[in-house]
Amino acid sequence: MEGKKETQGITIRKSENVPEWYNEVVLKSQMADFSPIGGCMTIRPHGYAVWESIQATLDRMLKDTGHKNAYFPMFIPEKFLKKEAEHFEGFVPEVAWIEDENERYAIRPTSETIMYDAYSKWIRSWRDLPVLINQWCNIVRWETKVTKIFLRTREFLWQEGHTVHATKEEAEEEVMKILGLYTKLVEDYLAIPVLTGKKSKAETFPGADYTTCMESLMPDGKALQMGTSHNLGQHFSKVFDIKYLDKDGKEKGVYQTSWGVTTRLIGALIMVHGDDKGLVLPPRIAPIHVAIVPIIFDKDKKKVFSECEKVKKRLEGDYTVHFDDRDSYSAGWKFNEWELKGVPIRLEIGPKDVAKKQAVMVRRDTGEKRPVKLSGIEQAVSKELESMQKAMFRKARKFMDDNTVETKTRAELKKAIKEGKMAKMAWCGDAGCEEDIKDETAATIRVIPFNQKKTSSKCVCGKKGCCTVYVSRAY
Amino acid sequence: MEGKKETQGITIRKSENVPEWYNEVVLKSQMADFSPIGGCMTIRPHGYAVWESIQATLDRMLKDTGHKNAYFPMFIPEKFLKKEAEHFEGFVPEVAWIEDENERYAIRPTSETIMYDAYSKWIRSWRDLPVLINQWCNIVRWETKVTKIFLRTREFLWQEGHTVHATKEEAEEEVMKILGLYTKLVEDYLAIPVLTGKKSKAETFPGADYTTCMESLMPDGKALQMGTSHNLGQHFSKVFDIKYLDKDGKEKGVYQTSWGVTTRLIGALIMVHGDDKGLVLPPRIAPIHVAIVPIIFDKDKKKVFSECEKVKKRLEGDYTVHFDDRDSYSAGWKFNEWELKGVPIRLEIGPKDVAKKQAVMVRRDTGEKRPVKLSGIEQAVSKELESMQKAMFRKARKFMDDNTVETKTRAELKKAIKEGKMAKMAWCGDAGCEEDIKDETAATIRVIPFNQKKTSSKCVCGKKGCCTVYVSRAY
Repeated sequence: MEGKKETQGITIRKSENVPEWYNEVVLKSQMADFSPIGGCMTIRPHGYAVWESIQATLDRMLKDTGHKNAYFPMFIPEKFLKKEAEHFEGFVPEVAWIEDENERYAIRPTSETIMYDAYSKWIRSWRDLPVLINQWCNIVRWETKVTKIFLRTREFLWQEGHTVHATKEEAEEEVMKILGLYTKLVEDYLAIPVLTGKKSKAETFPGADYTTCMESLMPDGKALQMGTSHNLGQHFSKVFDIKYLDKDGKEKGVYQTSWGVTTRLIGALIMVHGDDKGLVLPPRIAPIHVAIVPIIFDKDKKKVFSECEKVKKRLEGDYTVHFDDRDSYSAGWKFNEWELKGVPIRLEIGPKDVAKKQAVMVRRDTGEKRPVKLSGIEQAVSKELESMQKAMFRKARKFMDDNTVETKTRAELKKAIKEGKMAKMAWCGDAGCEEDIKDETAATIRVIPFNQKKTSSKCVCGKKGCCTVYVSRAY
Repeated sequence: MEGKKETQGITIRKSENVPEWYNEVVLKSQMADFSPIGGCMTIRPHGYAVWESIQATLDRMLKDTGHKNAYFPMFIPEKFLKKEAEHFEGFVPEVAWIEDENERYAIRPTSETIMYDAYSKWIRSWRDLPVLINQWCNIVRWETKVTKIFLRTREFLWQEGHTVHATKEEAEEEVMKILGLYTKLVEDYLAIPVLTGKKSKAETFPGADYTTCMESLMPDGKALQMGTSHNLGQHFSKVFDIKYLDKDGKEKGVYQTSWGVTTRLIGALIMVHGDDKGLVLPPRIAPIHVAIVPIIFDKDKKKVFSECEKVKKRLEGDYTVHFDDRDSYSAGWKFNEWELKGVPIRLEIGPKDVAKKQAVMVRRDTGEKRPVKLSGIEQAVSKELESMQKAMFRKARKFMDDNTVETKTRAELKKAIKEGKMAKMAWCGDAGCEEDIKDETAATIRVIPFNQKKTSSKCVCGKKGCCTVYVSRAY
């Protein structure tokens, strides 16, 4: 146990080395582990509980808006993938294949093609529309780029929504509705602020008319794409021949959308909120809200345990509460462990607290420690959790604001990127200019915000600006 | 729409051709569809909603007993699979492989080996035990046998539990605890009676000390294995070197279990309960409990709809209620559709019902139709659902009892199997005799019930019987 104690906590400072700090937090908090298959991860129970919490939250939103879950085969015949040329070009370098006597199958890198083949059979008349289907599954992108647990792995988990609409307008509305739900999930639950808008053509999903997205800024100055919602227009419906007989007796082509968020969101949670003691989980997504740690000496054990059990029962209706009654670890060890795991509130109860009818409440994000009366424990916990949720979002927002700079010239842009900032700049709209920026700075246009006023600034290339964009390096 | 109407319902009788009836029900109820990849299925939203209901029920039971979910890579290095010789032999014919520059990976046919490699890293001391991990995921068994949607497919969904214990006794207890939860899930929720017991050596999981199982009898006289719970003893812990430092300071090997149920349970639900009108879903697992169908004439629409909405609201706290307000389909069409989809209760509300303050309640399993007062609608629905759940189980139990016969001689056994019965017989315990039975009848020993009294009967081979077993053909 002594051996363990020495290495229990985080030894690398976030401010000194984000990538190494991140790996240490992921491993020591037992969120995930490296796997023996290069680039694949093992999601451990604590990490998976966070994923279940994200799933439950988003799944409820999707069901409330009429979406239904389904499951399509993981194997995609090569000939399907080839049907939409851009789509094939975009995904083929990443695909893992298996071969049969007759055919080559891709392990799904995304499911547009296998789903839309089915849709073309299922959809006959206007009565069959809209189709609002979502799938929770594993995805494989056997890419060779540098991998990082949760943020970029060969296999990951996600949800992919694939909808079909009678009109262009309905498809557009769906794209924005989903981006709205995603923003709500990420900002209101994960407490991570995002920039939303469209992608440039170069960053658009292969086979989409346009891609909308949410982007957030990580502590190492790289942006992380947190989710995308694509308007596929009729790219796929044309090649998969998805048509419906309208009320007017005419056969018409459908309009489609697809959208997804992945286990990468867990990586964002760790990156954005974690600190030198480990994870900090926002209350609205934390799988455990309160950890109760008894502080005992042999003679008081029964009394203290009974008080802990009572507190647990009182809080359990509204929160997930863990009473840490293990004999084999000291209170100090337990404090560290629950801090490492990011549990929002720790309640310490010892014999003196029982006597005073109180518990000591410790809040994870601030470390603030204060006694609270047991009589008002529900309200105290509820208030603290709400306040913590808001404070975490504010802090993350401030970080993003503080690390976003307006740049007018190429020199300013290069400086900003070098310093790990996100640059806000006017862009000429030219793909060549975008390419030049990438070549020079390794940064890309992350997002073109919606509903812009026409900019009067010039692009960093000197040409007339057409819109404001955010530029940074990215995961 | 006329074209559709003609083919809306089930045209094949269950009593005349179970396999074709089954396929028609699966497709027309929109539970699932064939896929373009031979042997793989597409689970459509209605089928997936049933799976979600099964998942939610079992997941709650597993969490209440201390199990936690996790996710391990889908790719298993060939060298891992080879470590346990029996395990490798058992699974290798079914495996789909992908190849990398360096290695060959199996797409998981089951996850013992990839998980236990991780366990050997994670487990150090007695404090780390027990490990109670479950995984919900997709599984691939690229076998060439005849496939059938839900019952035998190349890719399917399942949960697999993998636990680690300090002692043999704890592992034994876990195996039986899980079999108990499975039995509860299947009998109390799915309303399908099962026989539980052990498998013979020939039917034991490759790499297990012994396999316990639940078996049920399908309407075509074939048994369906509904779930298994294996005691792995130390087979895997030895080859994966999973050891712990015990309180006494000594290093000891662990004991393990693994267990699973799959989307095959959905096939069982369809097979056992379905009838000539389609699916019949047991209330405790049905994703929709009540479908409200308005019976309207233009002038009454508003009044009738408002009453339907009111009823929906009143029932919604306890049940999932769907108000079918579509204009584009007739009431008759809707009746057929909800029957096809197996919704337990249909409430019909027309202008006359509104006037009489009643609804017409139709129960799916019996087709029984009767008016119920709106004032007592909650109690009426609750009572009917409970009664339906019980009646469905009783009916299925009676079918199994009626189709199980005791056989004393080989001739009787052959006759029983030929007639599509399950045979109950004394068995000598000899693997050669078991093999002979299989060769002659295509039937296998499905289950050896627990806690038997010593049998005085002779085996069908003439030798002394050692135990009573159930024998039948199987999926």
